[in-house]
Amino acid sequence: MLAEIREQPSALERTLRGSQGVARELRAVVSRKPPCMIVLAARGTSDNAAQFGRYLIEITTGIPVSLAAPSVSTLYGAKLRLDHALVVGISQSGESTDINMFLESAREQGALTVGITNEGASSLAHLAQHNFVLAAGRETSVPATKTYTGQLLTMYLLAHALGGATDLEDLERLPEWTQLALDLEPQVAGLAAEYASIERAIIAARGLNYSNALEYGLKLMETCYVVAERFSGADLMHGPIALAEEAFPVFLFAPGGPTWPGMEELLESLRGLNARTLVITDRSNAAAAGMARNAIVIPASLAAPRTLCGDFLTPIPYIVPAQLFTAHLAAAKGLDPDHPRTLSKVTKTV
Amino acid sequence: MLAEIREQPSALERTLRGSQGVARELRAVVSRKPPCMIVLAARGTSDNAAQFGRYLIEITTGIPVSLAAPSVSTLYGAKLRLDHALVVGISQSGESTDINMFLESAREQGALTVGITNEGASSLAHLAQHNFVLAAGRETSVPATKTYTGQLLTMYLLAHALGGATDLEDLERLPEWTQLALDLEPQVAGLAAEYASIERAIIAARGLNYSNALEYGLKLMETCYVVAERFSGADLMHGPIALAEEAFPVFLFAPGGPTWPGMEELLESLRGLNARTLVITDRSNAAAAGMARNAIVIPASLAAPRTLCGDFLTPIPYIVPAQLFTAHLAAAKGLDPDHPRTLSKVTKTV
Repeated sequence: MLAEIREQPSALERTLRGSQGVARELRAVVSRKPPCMIVLAARGTSDNAAQFGRYLIEITTGIPVSLAAPSVSTLYGAKLRLDHALVVGISQSGESTDINMFLESAREQGALTVGITNEGASSLAHLAQHNFVLAAGRETSVPATKTYTGQLLTMYLLAHALGGATDLEDLERLPEWTQLALDLEPQVAGLAAEYASIERAIIAARGLNYSNALEYGLKLMETCYVVAERFSGADLMHGPIALAEEAFPVFLFAPGGPTWPGMEELLESLRGLNARTLVITDRSNAAAAGMARNAIVIPASLAAPRTLCGDFLTPIPYIVPAQLFTAHLAAAKGLDPDHPRTLSKVTKTV
Repeated sequence: MLAEIREQPSALERTLRGSQGVARELRAVVSRKPPCMIVLAARGTSDNAAQFGRYLIEITTGIPVSLAAPSVSTLYGAKLRLDHALVVGISQSGESTDINMFLESAREQGALTVGITNEGASSLAHLAQHNFVLAAGRETSVPATKTYTGQLLTMYLLAHALGGATDLEDLERLPEWTQLALDLEPQVAGLAAEYASIERAIIAARGLNYSNALEYGLKLMETCYVVAERFSGADLMHGPIALAEEAFPVFLFAPGGPTWPGMEELLESLRGLNARTLVITDRSNAAAAGMARNAIVIPASLAAPRTLCGDFLTPIPYIVPAQLFTAHLAAAKGLDPDHPRTLSKVTKTV
């Protein structure tokens, strides 16, 4: 797992180089017949990447996005009216049975179909009309890491293909920024050792980083057996914050930008409850670091972003310390992060 | 909380009687200009009801449904293209700031708007063009119960208004069936006492009952401070099942019908892991009861369902034992379920 985490800058660079052609080709198709909605279909880590895609596409294109509930067609046999939709299947292996069934059914209903997978020879890649094939290299550790960031990167390319105001040149800074986040490994390893005894946690974020809360929580569950509750900051305030007692571990993704005021309010509440907060933030947002018990501060990227909002490019570098934390926490707990109990790499459910 | 749980049969009957006119009126509007998609916007318990609506509407009408991410417009300022959409705001109080902002923005974009609330004089009811007003009576306990089942009931009426194959006469059996579930209170109270020491739990369900897993977990978190992880059965198999060690408490909703084969597979896996399973099921599905350590068996409703699938009417009666369990577990833990720490009844987030 650690080796694959460390490969991410080069994996991102290869995927970025390899996928721009598909983005251009799809952009031409879509401009001739713009879809009235986008449906993203995925499970597990890929579904977390889909959550990011949901926010990114709606923010940059205004086209409404739905995350598919595959069982509507696989179990209940519903035929969805998708003739004006673009349907995207996302799967690391490309062999998720229900995602492929959903995509096949969507294509029969007249949807334009797109695949996002790390395996160009997979069933998904054969089913979909257009394919983004990640160039992350084979992922062998059960917990996905480099394919998750590869899927996030592909979402920027997909948003661009859908006419979104995403500047492809900005994306070229991501591999370097990811490396800056990787350089924090010694600090993160030290922090993880301090958390070795945790069994429960809350993870919170909002907007573009919400997917990172989902993904970090999933990693803590599957590799460290920590019962990790994952919330948007707003949903947390709507009930589950009652969980947060004295010293309860709470992890937050809190970049500067539009989500900061809500996260600031949440950090204030958690300080009042004396929770054990650890915040992942950037150098531009010193307030976050000051309000939490612990902070991992990611250096801001070198150039100022020319893009829509302050947190636009943060999700990829921000997940890196969380991945590192998970791998080191598993080690501190005496667990093997590459082979969690009960799990195998390809999960087939209908 | 217990008093409001017990009021549900009469509350459902009042709402059913009071809301059929709106359903007919909306059905006429929609038949003239059918929407190409439905967007449901809600937070907390209302968002769980929205999850049910998502499955129900897609299954019965084939119209794709999206659950809104309100921050896309409230924080990022995106203007979604919703001119062919029907947008539904769901809020017990009708005073959720972000839901109302989202609905207002959708109306400006040309969407047809619908409100579902327990307060007919609320801001939401003024904003929306058509309103389903629950007749649940004022809800004073912080954890929502009778408004949740009222919202589920309204989803059947909404699906009918959207042209779905929902037989309104079938719904008339729901108050009586809910009473049969309430009659299980002595057994449920006894079981809850045995679980008094739990601090962690997994809740799983699929399809139409998935919303009940979300809602039951939320109730356990906000009133019993149990860290309750909520999953669709399929997502649980995709990673988090690694959490389930010997004697780990796992609650499952497992009616007969299309979701049963997947839930059966999950129950088998959990039996192999020696987890502490408690299943809510019905008399028609004896296999579920036989495979779990504990079972709450809801009597099947009196007449055979004439509707689409075996689990079609189960979500309302199935949540009742879970509500009762929560109230009695809180009591067994020495907590006051009506006033959880940190929370107030109306939550305003942007």
